[in-house]
Amino acid sequence: MKTKSKKGSSSVTPMPRSTRVYAHGKLHPGLRVPFREVSLSPTFRTDGAIEVNEPVRLYDTSGLWGDPAFKGNARKGLPALRREWILARGDIEEVRAKRGKTRRVLRAKAGCAVTQMAYAKRGIITPEMEFVAIRENLGRDDAWETFHEAGPGNNGVRSRGQRGDTRALRHQHPGQPFGAPIPRWITPEFVRDEVARGRAILPSNVNHPESEPMAIGRNFLVKINANIGNSAIASSIEKEVEKMRWSTRWGADTVMDLSTGKNIHATREWILRNAPVPVGTVPIYQALEKAGGKAEEVTWELYRDTLIEQAEQGVDYFTIHAGVLLRYVPLTARRACGIVSRGGSIMAKWCLAHHRESFLYEHFREICEILRAYDAAFSLGDGLRPGAIADANDEAQLAELETLGELTKIAWEHDCQVMIEGPGHVPMHLIKENMDLELQACHEAPFYTLGPLTTDVAPGYDHITSAIGAAMIGWYGTAMLCYVTPKEHLGLPDRDDVKEGVIAYKIAAHAADLAKGHPGAQARDNALTKARFEFRWEDQFNLSLDPDRAREYHDATLPQEKAKSAHFCSMCGPKFCAMKITEEVRKYAEEKGLGAQEALRTGLDEKALEFVKAGGKV
Amino acid sequence: MKTKSKKGSSSVTPMPRSTRVYAHGKLHPGLRVPFREVSLSPTFRTDGAIEVNEPVRLYDTSGLWGDPAFKGNARKGLPALRREWILARGDIEEVRAKRGKTRRVLRAKAGCAVTQMAYAKRGIITPEMEFVAIRENLGRDDAWETFHEAGPGNNGVRSRGQRGDTRALRHQHPGQPFGAPIPRWITPEFVRDEVARGRAILPSNVNHPESEPMAIGRNFLVKINANIGNSAIASSIEKEVEKMRWSTRWGADTVMDLSTGKNIHATREWILRNAPVPVGTVPIYQALEKAGGKAEEVTWELYRDTLIEQAEQGVDYFTIHAGVLLRYVPLTARRACGIVSRGGSIMAKWCLAHHRESFLYEHFREICEILRAYDAAFSLGDGLRPGAIADANDEAQLAELETLGELTKIAWEHDCQVMIEGPGHVPMHLIKENMDLELQACHEAPFYTLGPLTTDVAPGYDHITSAIGAAMIGWYGTAMLCYVTPKEHLGLPDRDDVKEGVIAYKIAAHAADLAKGHPGAQARDNALTKARFEFRWEDQFNLSLDPDRAREYHDATLPQEKAKSAHFCSMCGPKFCAMKITEEVRKYAEEKGLGAQEALRTGLDEKALEFVKAGGKV
Repeated sequence: MKTKSKKGSSSVTPMPRSTRVYAHGKLHPGLRVPFREVSLSPTFRTDGAIEVNEPVRLYDTSGLWGDPAFKGNARKGLPALRREWILARGDIEEVRAKRGKTRRVLRAKAGCAVTQMAYAKRGIITPEMEFVAIRENLGRDDAWETFHEAGPGNNGVRSRGQRGDTRALRHQHPGQPFGAPIPRWITPEFVRDEVARGRAILPSNVNHPESEPMAIGRNFLVKINANIGNSAIASSIEKEVEKMRWSTRWGADTVMDLSTGKNIHATREWILRNAPVPVGTVPIYQALEKAGGKAEEVTWELYRDTLIEQAEQGVDYFTIHAGVLLRYVPLTARRACGIVSRGGSIMAKWCLAHHRESFLYEHFREICEILRAYDAAFSLGDGLRPGAIADANDEAQLAELETLGELTKIAWEHDCQVMIEGPGHVPMHLIKENMDLELQACHEAPFYTLGPLTTDVAPGYDHITSAIGAAMIGWYGTAMLCYVTPKEHLGLPDRDDVKEGVIAYKIAAHAADLAKGHPGAQARDNALTKARFEFRWEDQFNLSLDPDRAREYHDATLPQEKAKSAHFCSMCGPKFCAMKITEEVRKYAEEKGLGAQEALRTGLDEKALEFVKAGGKV
Repeated sequence: MKTKSKKGSSSVTPMPRSTRVYAHGKLHPGLRVPFREVSLSPTFRTDGAIEVNEPVRLYDTSGLWGDPAFKGNARKGLPALRREWILARGDIEEVRAKRGKTRRVLRAKAGCAVTQMAYAKRGIITPEMEFVAIRENLGRDDAWETFHEAGPGNNGVRSRGQRGDTRALRHQHPGQPFGAPIPRWITPEFVRDEVARGRAILPSNVNHPESEPMAIGRNFLVKINANIGNSAIASSIEKEVEKMRWSTRWGADTVMDLSTGKNIHATREWILRNAPVPVGTVPIYQALEKAGGKAEEVTWELYRDTLIEQAEQGVDYFTIHAGVLLRYVPLTARRACGIVSRGGSIMAKWCLAHHRESFLYEHFREICEILRAYDAAFSLGDGLRPGAIADANDEAQLAELETLGELTKIAWEHDCQVMIEGPGHVPMHLIKENMDLELQACHEAPFYTLGPLTTDVAPGYDHITSAIGAAMIGWYGTAMLCYVTPKEHLGLPDRDDVKEGVIAYKIAAHAADLAKGHPGAQARDNALTKARFEFRWEDQFNLSLDPDRAREYHDATLPQEKAKSAHFCSMCGPKFCAMKITEEVRKYAEEKGLGAQEALRTGLDEKALEFVKAGGKV
């Protein structure tokens, strides 16, 4: 299923009816926090009045590539947004890069921890933290409040304000956050506290100043990651940079460069210099490359140098499979699908070949020291994640999770930021157990899951099998969802697959935000609903996750321009439109004074029921 | 996103490596219950042994269109499979059709209830019931058992049989059915009992003998419905018949003909004579057509005649919005999206215009009498379902649900089969409340939901926003899921959209079956996983929900024929393949005797942890 849309947008085409706006900080007035503001048409009421519809501010991950005023290009890269903040902290020095002799890189001065966690623990609210707070409030100001009457359980909401007024557009169901203490209003201090506790991370390598701060944590908006990267078989650097921009255009909050082929260093450099979002990698891939593809020949020294090389380039988080212990490996032998994590299988092979614990485990504290010198975050890899429904939540997986929890504590001792990777393939009824065990074993460190896929039977549609699991685990508390494209298990995703995967995961993440009750999350649904109800077709398209697709699908049945203002759609046709009839019902009800429902309630209902129960004949 | 696949299959192209097989009844030996049997390649083990992989039997909804031995065509229609069973019961007479003078139709003799529920209550196991039992067991025989050790909660499964053996392929996680008493083995008597209690329905209009029996109930496999039907704007009869065959090819368990335009009677006739699955309609659409499109001018007589006309044609279930009471209508006035059900809005308008309860409510017992004379089932419509996240679980919706529960009781008094329609648009955390309230208010009558969509922000992708909700509500106990296509809210679905919708919903239904623990459901996942693990690419494609798509996606990266037998895929390339490394790990582990994991467990692990905690330097 491929769309080579003729009218397809490039990664920098402005989104329709959208303006880039910036909000400013209070603690750090120089901050410019980007939002995409979608302008809406007015509503022409049936009484002749014209009602203005306020523009809607959306969280925007596209960076300066989404700002029409920006005139850069991929060769020049993005400006170093965070460089001043980083240098102003006075704990950083410039050093010569290990690789690429002329380039100078930043690193902590000896003994300094330059991580967001270190600052947070010391009570410092960094510009990054305030930036995140403003972003997470979705462009609301502090006078903006969601409206709902919190009742017992989820059942408290049964009424709301008059449609059309601000109150109705800000109505939101109280969420069910499973104990996550999400506040109504996110302050910079709240961000700091979450980072200090390890419940959230702000991946912010000092050598990737191009990236805009974002938070990964259970009490924030659910984030999504898009994997890019070439393999030995296909792809090119240009394509990968373009995939990165393309995925952030549609909403990827981070990207992981999983390149395994040639030019692995250069590809990463290009991606980093152009990425407005944090970039993650799996350093063992490059280390294996350097060892000629032989797992057992990878050494600690080789791995360490690779880690430093990538940290100097600016990688914001590293997947490190330090929890694959020798004794866990035989637990996978009877699995239906063995070890499916590439990193996990490399480490398993290494452990068996040397019959000892891996260098990742044995040198874990040294790794912590390296990462804290650049503020690269840990993404503790789940090398033994299940690759099939049959293997879900098995002993190998859960044993590794316990070890990841132990490693989390050690990383935190070093002030390193940590998140925990999770499965994989899990049937729906076993998903929550994953989240609960992760919170418990890993001390509430953010969970970062791949899907999970809820069945194995649909290769070609695994963006859907996994969006189901992703939405659920996001609701239960997972902080970031690693996308799955339709090509999963079958081939390398192209540009269209990347978009399909990102959109499916934006859906999952947003559905999770609604269910958790993230403050302000429902505003976009409400605005789109109002546009839908009022037949403001263009506004409906423009507020959607993919305006191009929405417009294209509408045009497929009703291509005429005037259909965009028609008060019906092709599904029912002009006579049968339910929404049109609802309008009439409302008008009719008003004329007849039927709004006074109390009058109707008494008498008529009991009578009618008696009548039917008695036989219901006229 | 459209696939005009060059190699695209028609609705009768045989599925790859598939054979149509029939299982036979014991109580009714003449029964021929269809399955699609997928042949698999053998496994070439590394030790040189060749292991046979048993073929996999799949539930098959395509009817005789999926049997290569069948030489019929759409003009001739399908043979009348059930006609003999129906006539043999002796409670049926032939009468002249109200419309189409020459055709003769079947109807209950005066005073007889010819519904499956009536037979079930009298202790009769009909051929339909045995047919369903065999189908629901997914082609297992009664020696076939799933293997799992039921432990406390969901955590009981931590080990399983050796891979490759039957036990491993039949392993299944114990489900979490939320109190649904799903048996390990489904007997004809169980089916009878479920139908007698009203917990399941077998939609089986005596005038639609072409359809193959199937069950809709919480203790059976989750079913899906595909909506087809032209509107005033577009489409044609031929296209609709083809859409019906196309949707059953991919797994639609029932279809609803929602035609509202011209030729409504003829379109339905064509669909019915060719449909191997039950067909549902919303008769108010045609009644409104007859009333010139004016809701307030529809009369009971006009509706009744329409109902009889359609029952005589063979419609298996009718959506009837008898729960839209006058006093509920004003409850929708302050909604964000008013009334979005077409039937609901028509009835609301009618109620307001006449300021009385609708003819559907007042004549409900007469409707019961009509439906029981043909065994057309009720699908009690949720005319006030929410059309936006903001309106989920509101007073209007829940009030109507209570009324549907009252009407269910009345229908059951008449031995009519009943299911209950449900929403709609519901955020994830409010979905379970819908299921719980339905079971309670409607006395466990099967629930039949549209999605629900878990967010409003993704027009163009509502097959995904709703597959998330559908999978969850299916797990919670919904018996049938009405599909949503990518064109929802935007336009009329074409052939490709129908397929996208059906596959998304097969995923949701199957994920729900796994989570509920339907016996045997995991066998397909296990077989596909084994094929995946052993790089039997063709088997992986052929076992998937959409072999065409799986093959196409694989070929997009590795088109060479030899890649189908390659022991790697394009995602990782030959060197990095995790699964290949797992194979090596296994072999290595065996050579070194590392299968004896107990030896490893002792000593090494504690030592290693101490080591890391102490500083972890070598």
